[in-house]
Amino acid sequence: MQLIDTQLSSTWFPAAKPDKDNNQFNLEVTAAQGSYLVTAKHGEIYDAISSWWCKPLGHCHPIITKSIREQLKLFEHHIPAKSWNSNIEKLSKRLVQIFTQMDKVIYASDGSSAVEIAMKLSYETRVLEQQAYRSKYIALNGAYHGETIFTLGVCGIKYYKTNYSGLLQDNYFIEDIPYVDGQNDPLWLDCNFDYNYWNNFFTHTAQNATALIIEPLVQGAAGMKIISRDFLIKIINLARNHNLHIIADEIMVGLGRLGYYSVSKELLNFEPDIVCFAKNLTAGAIPMSAVVINHSISQVFRKHQKAFLHSHTHSCNGLAAAAANSYLDYLDNSNILTQVKLAEIKLIEIMNDLKNSFAFIKQTRVIGTIAALELNLPIRMLEDIFNIGIEEQIYLRPIGNTLYIMPPIYNIKHDLELIQTKLHLVLQKISTLINKNCNYLPSKCRHVP
Amino acid sequence: MQLIDTQLSSTWFPAAKPDKDNNQFNLEVTAAQGSYLVTAKHGEIYDAISSWWCKPLGHCHPIITKSIREQLKLFEHHIPAKSWNSNIEKLSKRLVQIFTQMDKVIYASDGSSAVEIAMKLSYETRVLEQQAYRSKYIALNGAYHGETIFTLGVCGIKYYKTNYSGLLQDNYFIEDIPYVDGQNDPLWLDCNFDYNYWNNFFTHTAQNATALIIEPLVQGAAGMKIISRDFLIKIINLARNHNLHIIADEIMVGLGRLGYYSVSKELLNFEPDIVCFAKNLTAGAIPMSAVVINHSISQVFRKHQKAFLHSHTHSCNGLAAAAANSYLDYLDNSNILTQVKLAEIKLIEIMNDLKNSFAFIKQTRVIGTIAALELNLPIRMLEDIFNIGIEEQIYLRPIGNTLYIMPPIYNIKHDLELIQTKLHLVLQKISTLINKNCNYLPSKCRHVP
Repeated sequence: MQLIDTQLSSTWFPAAKPDKDNNQFNLEVTAAQGSYLVTAKHGEIYDAISSWWCKPLGHCHPIITKSIREQLKLFEHHIPAKSWNSNIEKLSKRLVQIFTQMDKVIYASDGSSAVEIAMKLSYETRVLEQQAYRSKYIALNGAYHGETIFTLGVCGIKYYKTNYSGLLQDNYFIEDIPYVDGQNDPLWLDCNFDYNYWNNFFTHTAQNATALIIEPLVQGAAGMKIISRDFLIKIINLARNHNLHIIADEIMVGLGRLGYYSVSKELLNFEPDIVCFAKNLTAGAIPMSAVVINHSISQVFRKHQKAFLHSHTHSCNGLAAAAANSYLDYLDNSNILTQVKLAEIKLIEIMNDLKNSFAFIKQTRVIGTIAALELNLPIRMLEDIFNIGIEEQIYLRPIGNTLYIMPPIYNIKHDLELIQTKLHLVLQKISTLINKNCNYLPSKCRHVP
Repeated sequence: MQLIDTQLSSTWFPAAKPDKDNNQFNLEVTAAQGSYLVTAKHGEIYDAISSWWCKPLGHCHPIITKSIREQLKLFEHHIPAKSWNSNIEKLSKRLVQIFTQMDKVIYASDGSSAVEIAMKLSYETRVLEQQAYRSKYIALNGAYHGETIFTLGVCGIKYYKTNYSGLLQDNYFIEDIPYVDGQNDPLWLDCNFDYNYWNNFFTHTAQNATALIIEPLVQGAAGMKIISRDFLIKIINLARNHNLHIIADEIMVGLGRLGYYSVSKELLNFEPDIVCFAKNLTAGAIPMSAVVINHSISQVFRKHQKAFLHSHTHSCNGLAAAAANSYLDYLDNSNILTQVKLAEIKLIEIMNDLKNSFAFIKQTRVIGTIAALELNLPIRMLEDIFNIGIEEQIYLRPIGNTLYIMPPIYNIKHDLELIQTKLHLVLQKISTLINKNCNYLPSKCRHVP
């Protein structure tokens, strides 16, 4: 086990205490190639969650590294003001052309900033149209849209917000979201929707609100929860009826993860007012996010001859744009999106097999290449999963009691077998631990009826 | 003149209207090397503001491109959770070791996010210490700390905030900042400081506030305004007396621009509670920002066994860390910081010569390799400066009536002569325009006494 010496480590890692707990694995990554993290002491670890959901082509895919090497011969980055380059313009055109009503793209470097831009754009159109009182946002319980203070204001997960409640905007949240197991769930196409109740909700909130913000169909940070498609469409339509903008946060699901460029466009069959892309955009090589903007929004700025003031230094970074264009080339020219849709079918089988094999699996969920197992284990045991995963050379990092995978997609057909084998081994070891220790035996203890 | 076709452009550029004005230059950048932007139609343009202040080594410096090419052989980016790599750890150590009281670094991808992290860290320590009521921030008039909504709450420039006022936190601002021309200004070392007045200000604000946030010595977005060192130190000391944290935003000035690694540490002789670096950090090659944290802050999280929840996907991006380490190698192993200090002396001479040559220059300001000319010209004429600059193959982008330069520093000794020549040519053309047109003749019109 390779630990960072607590006394010596100067990095404060994300979502962590200042110093690493010496009882935790802390993998030293020396290289990463394909679907694997190469570690100093633990060999090659299968990157089952694509390094926080952002490496669809795995690590150092030749088309990505080549595009960066080629761009390095020209420039890394130049000022985006009164200047442009053909790479960024090409990228903007491609993102706009995923849709039919979009006409502009604004760039930033991370997902939070993309959502900030989207939320600011929506509100500023209200200000320009003499409706500054429409300053609230409507979000979903379970939502995660970033960790800047403004985006935490539309976060529907208490854990992320508690210590900042004194700073957060008081927004509206849609509770009781009907979640589903996947596209075969009866609720997917027909949820029990009380139109009058929801219409009433929007009637009471929309007058002071500017936008409904959604994660199309999957709430990642909430534990890979899949939202009923029927419910989401009905909520979107109600929001539209009440003249709200729709902001679609496709940072996790967009550009390949579910087998589509845009989940809003292709799976929900609608065009949001604003769509945010990030993680997959550069195949996770270089930080970049993109805010794709409907003509309905940009037109308000045109009408008022107004500049939008949000100036990211690296707005047209050449290296990031080169990587992004190469990734989109890959999506365009391979059959990868079809492979993802086929993988979904196979993942459902794999997850069901696992559920049938292990009593502590309560539920399975699959959409695209996201698969989750809802476990019935004591919290302290869930922490063992990471460690056992490393023993079996697979990087697994449960969210609460949700064990999930979100593997690189470039080689998904091949990787599915490996995922099945490794997950089975990990869960078998968990099962053995349960049998050794009654405290770990939820089926005989308090956790299972 | 190379224009983007308004009908075809799909990119919404920073600080711009949705569509470029066809009367504006819009440079197509095809390459960038050294201190020059290579353009499709205008040849090589001297990048006099370092592509928004972030290219201290110019473009494609071999040590930066080599570090990225080498890193591409290992990995681009891996998940920063429960994992680390030697590059990021090396970088953290170097940033911490600029100071004596710092012990941790948190990474993000842009300056705004770094300031968000700093402001969140400060407030969360108050929450952990049962002082959640200390939720306000004290900032300076003229300040700019980013354009997320929370960081706009500490922006002291009305222009950036007006249309978002309905969303912004109501913070405290220090007005009437004593600005100086440079380090030789008498106010630099001894400002007229009414201790009782300022003590009273802090007495009335500090009880509800968590931090004073400052840009050490130069307010860039306000027009390269240089703050009296004496004033800033006295304000910092008062803030300390009132138990406020000090957040130093060194995104523009830190890591070389003024001839120091940290302006707070080396020119103000103090250690902030939190320091933000960004633009220069990777020599402007790849988006990355760093929040360097005093033990006084991290210790509160240790005491309460609390994780800090702010999880940037690219927190330990390998390509960015490689570029940053190479840039710091360059600062360590060259005499560049000395060159910057020598350049300051020469820039004062150059700016004074220009002031003596052109009546429409009201004032000059110089610190480190930042030099500004305060012009007395009608606003519409200020817009001509960019166009004339391009004719003379120098990229100049005035902020209001401030014409400034902030050139790459790697070759500053050589570039000074070129800067002097080009600025003189541009200002000569402005002078000619003035003489052609009485409306452009401020000395005979309303603008000059």
